[in-house]
Amino acid sequence: MPLWSLCLRGSYIPRRHKDHKELMRIKILKIKMETLYKTSTREFRERWINYIHDLQNDICLALEQADGKARFREDEWERAEGKGGGGKTRIIQNGNIFEKGGVNTSVVYGRVSDMMRRQLQLDAAKWFACGLSLVIHPLNPYVPTTHANWRYFELYDEEDNVVDRWFGGGADLTPYYLYEEDARHFHQTLKQAIDPFGDKLYQAYKEQCDEYFANTHRSNEMRGIGGVFYEHLRPKDDIHAEELFRFQQANGNAFIPAYLPVVMKRKDSAYGEREIAWQEIRRGRYVEFNLIHDRGTLFGLKTNGRTESILMSLPPRARWEYDYHPEPGSEEDKLLQACLHPRNWV
Amino acid sequence: MPLWSLCLRGSYIPRRHKDHKELMRIKILKIKMETLYKTSTREFRERWINYIHDLQNDICLALEQADGKARFREDEWERAEGKGGGGKTRIIQNGNIFEKGGVNTSVVYGRVSDMMRRQLQLDAAKWFACGLSLVIHPLNPYVPTTHANWRYFELYDEEDNVVDRWFGGGADLTPYYLYEEDARHFHQTLKQAIDPFGDKLYQAYKEQCDEYFANTHRSNEMRGIGGVFYEHLRPKDDIHAEELFRFQQANGNAFIPAYLPVVMKRKDSAYGEREIAWQEIRRGRYVEFNLIHDRGTLFGLKTNGRTESILMSLPPRARWEYDYHPEPGSEEDKLLQACLHPRNWV
Repeated sequence: MPLWSLCLRGSYIPRRHKDHKELMRIKILKIKMETLYKTSTREFRERWINYIHDLQNDICLALEQADGKARFREDEWERAEGKGGGGKTRIIQNGNIFEKGGVNTSVVYGRVSDMMRRQLQLDAAKWFACGLSLVIHPLNPYVPTTHANWRYFELYDEEDNVVDRWFGGGADLTPYYLYEEDARHFHQTLKQAIDPFGDKLYQAYKEQCDEYFANTHRSNEMRGIGGVFYEHLRPKDDIHAEELFRFQQANGNAFIPAYLPVVMKRKDSAYGEREIAWQEIRRGRYVEFNLIHDRGTLFGLKTNGRTESILMSLPPRARWEYDYHPEPGSEEDKLLQACLHPRNWV
Repeated sequence: MPLWSLCLRGSYIPRRHKDHKELMRIKILKIKMETLYKTSTREFRERWINYIHDLQNDICLALEQADGKARFREDEWERAEGKGGGGKTRIIQNGNIFEKGGVNTSVVYGRVSDMMRRQLQLDAAKWFACGLSLVIHPLNPYVPTTHANWRYFELYDEEDNVVDRWFGGGADLTPYYLYEEDARHFHQTLKQAIDPFGDKLYQAYKEQCDEYFANTHRSNEMRGIGGVFYEHLRPKDDIHAEELFRFQQANGNAFIPAYLPVVMKRKDSAYGEREIAWQEIRRGRYVEFNLIHDRGTLFGLKTNGRTESILMSLPPRARWEYDYHPEPGSEEDKLLQACLHPRNWV
């Protein structure tokens, strides 16, 4: 039974896949822990790294099983000069369902450079970051594009004392046609994951998402119908750190149940030239957001990140027409209005 | 006889078109000069504005005649609140030759904002800018995309004294397939226009162009095979200002003779799926440069410029494939190598 079918019944629980036959072909990245800073948070960090790699396996497997044709290709990379960590970029292309997508992890660290000090206002000597970042662009214009990211940051002084640390992340949905039930399902699933940690959190992070993923140069048009987005969740103490860790896991684990049911519901919808043209125009907006506004993309590109891993987020096809406006009242316009006027979906 | 045929014979001389029957439909923007600052440079500025609008007419007419099908559509726009000038955006789409292009002029002015002070390091109270900016994306992958821009800036103190002024501009070519004779023709035509003003200028501005139009996040791969680029050409006195004016005119007038012969030579080349795919991948790189690195685009978008006029530069279609590399030694690779290793073409 494919994993996504479990998602459909709401009973999907991410498992460790080390013993899973299908995943034997995927090498587990050996993090050279001895090269990381020997700080008090070492064990905590190690558990986060393990979680992120397990989640990468889980998500890739679920997407492959749903697609039924394309497989993820993995590229392992190291930062320049063999120092400061690296990552596992996993790309899926030309599938039955997924036209292009990436599910990437990275574990990176180093000294705080002048560029980081200036652009990120980081007041520390050394840094560590580990996270998972994914973008999935399906072929069928009735299936939404999605993005998600969960990350953990630490900053140290010269003596390797932790001076700051935080979690950040979120997931958002970019449909080309609006199905309100899909938007509700996506948001509701994220809300259910978050609610146990505080009943005002979902709404706050939902609003931060609406604010973040906006093309400010296009009257604050959002790239999609949002999701959640949070940053700088700083542990007050060790107990709080464990709670934030569980919060991140709850969000990471909610991704497949939030997204895949929407995919399976829409993947066989019939479409033609009109839907493809609209999909490409909206993907043009996606490119604009990622290259003009997305802080992660720009920071990666300007600090010599691995370009192909960062730009895996770009769609396979995009289109720009001068001053294009969908016909008022059309299905295309309905989606556009939802992007221009963010709503509450739960 | 079409204008471009004159270009082919090297005898094209831009003319004033006010009496030209075909252009009667194009309204001449009435610049409300009384709203501009009453400075000592008023007459100089007026002549520059007239030149820019004549050049816009010349270039649009030459491109329309070459295309034989599509016509430029004009949108006049004003800056917010009806103050500070505006522009004439002229767009051509779905032609025989030109798939999408814009030839835009603008005459804009205002008070120096905090944003301008910070991002442009402008130390003045008021500013004025007038220029022409064009990008042409042809349909046939054997016909190069091109971009050009010629602009004039003034800065004033509170009492409308001119405290700084300069010209900037240039033109560059973005082929999808490399024809060395086309690259030589384009560069040679620009060089011929520039040489009368100083025999080292072309080489200096050619090198600045190679430096500017580089995707630094892709090992400094240029978006094309360059051209010329110059900025902050400041008049030392009134006589020098006139010389710089003539220099700008020489560059502006050289554009059609530099570009159009290449278009006419390649417009009927046969092509198929392979050439289209490669054209779209290279156009993806064009999008990356414009949205990540181009100072003019980013400044316009972040200071509430007219988005559709600014982003007319984006190609009609673009494509991204993960970690795509053309086959070594192929025609596609030959172009890529020319972008990675800028050469001297004259």
